[in-house]
Amino acid sequence: MKTSRYCATQLIALLVLAGCGGSGDQAVRSPEADAVSVSNMVAEFDRCAREGDLEAFLSHVMDDVVWMPPGEPAVVGKQAVREWYANFYGTFDIELTHDVLETHTFGDAVIARGNAAQTLTPKAGGSPMSLSAKFILVFRRQPKGPLKVWRAIANANTPPPGG
Amino acid sequence: MKTSRYCATQLIALLVLAGCGGSGDQAVRSPEADAVSVSNMVAEFDRCAREGDLEAFLSHVMDDVVWMPPGEPAVVGKQAVREWYANFYGTFDIELTHDVLETHTFGDAVIARGNAAQTLTPKAGGSPMSLSAKFILVFRRQPKGPLKVWRAIANANTPPPGG
Repeated sequence: MKTSRYCATQLIALLVLAGCGGSGDQAVRSPEADAVSVSNMVAEFDRCAREGDLEAFLSHVMDDVVWMPPGEPAVVGKQAVREWYANFYGTFDIELTHDVLETHTFGDAVIARGNAAQTLTPKAGGSPMSLSAKFILVFRRQPKGPLKVWRAIANANTPPPGG
Repeated sequence: MKTSRYCATQLIALLVLAGCGGSGDQAVRSPEADAVSVSNMVAEFDRCAREGDLEAFLSHVMDDVVWMPPGEPAVVGKQAVREWYANFYGTFDIELTHDVLETHTFGDAVIARGNAAQTLTPKAGGSPMSLSAKFILVFRRQPKGPLKVWRAIANANTPPPGG
């Protein structure tokens, strides 16, 4: 009885030391868990784009984010990114599918690379435009465990029309 | 005498433990030293582009590099990157200037972001083409200390002509 109580105390201490205090912090610190988190997050980004859910999307973005879209200068900071995506979501009906090819963890940074298929239909009318792109996303681990987008860059897999 | 010999042995042991065996390995492990290394390396990339020095450029590239140029699919692996750059250096006279805006160290990975100004003049004749681009470079620390390019992606800061 005493032994099992001692073991239970030890187990709790170990769980606390390991950061398994119910918040799941430890789980997201393994590369495998980071890969799952990234996979789930980009699927959520695709849903946000489809449904125009700007606030849900921005909840995964750091304050000092830098988004580097093709064909224009870098968009620096969450407020500028908010305005960029408000315009993007407002201008197009968006079908977006991220395909993560690799995820690597370096301490508190996680780098993901992949392709994205995108079809944009102007809300004001006009033909849908399809684009195959590739991307690098860099996430940073937040103090309580979850990853958020810190740097993002994409470009096309095909030459521009007429280019 | 005996004490000083003991101290010298200890000192050597500490230097070996710290990786200060004369190769300067330890120096490149600080974020400040990484930033200097990256700055020097991209200046060397600019020289390589200007002089068509393919081998010097490739000496800074990892075997499992992925180069993600705009307008075409990812170029995967050093052999494919060699062929891409042999074609690039062979087709154009290149003026290239990297401007690193930030460098961050995450253990053995170093992420650099910046802009690059590029003027390409076709060797076969034709007008020079100027491009302002932005980039993310991810370097990995090699076993003996130096950083090498592991992932690279760039895109234009302006829309494509006619696009």
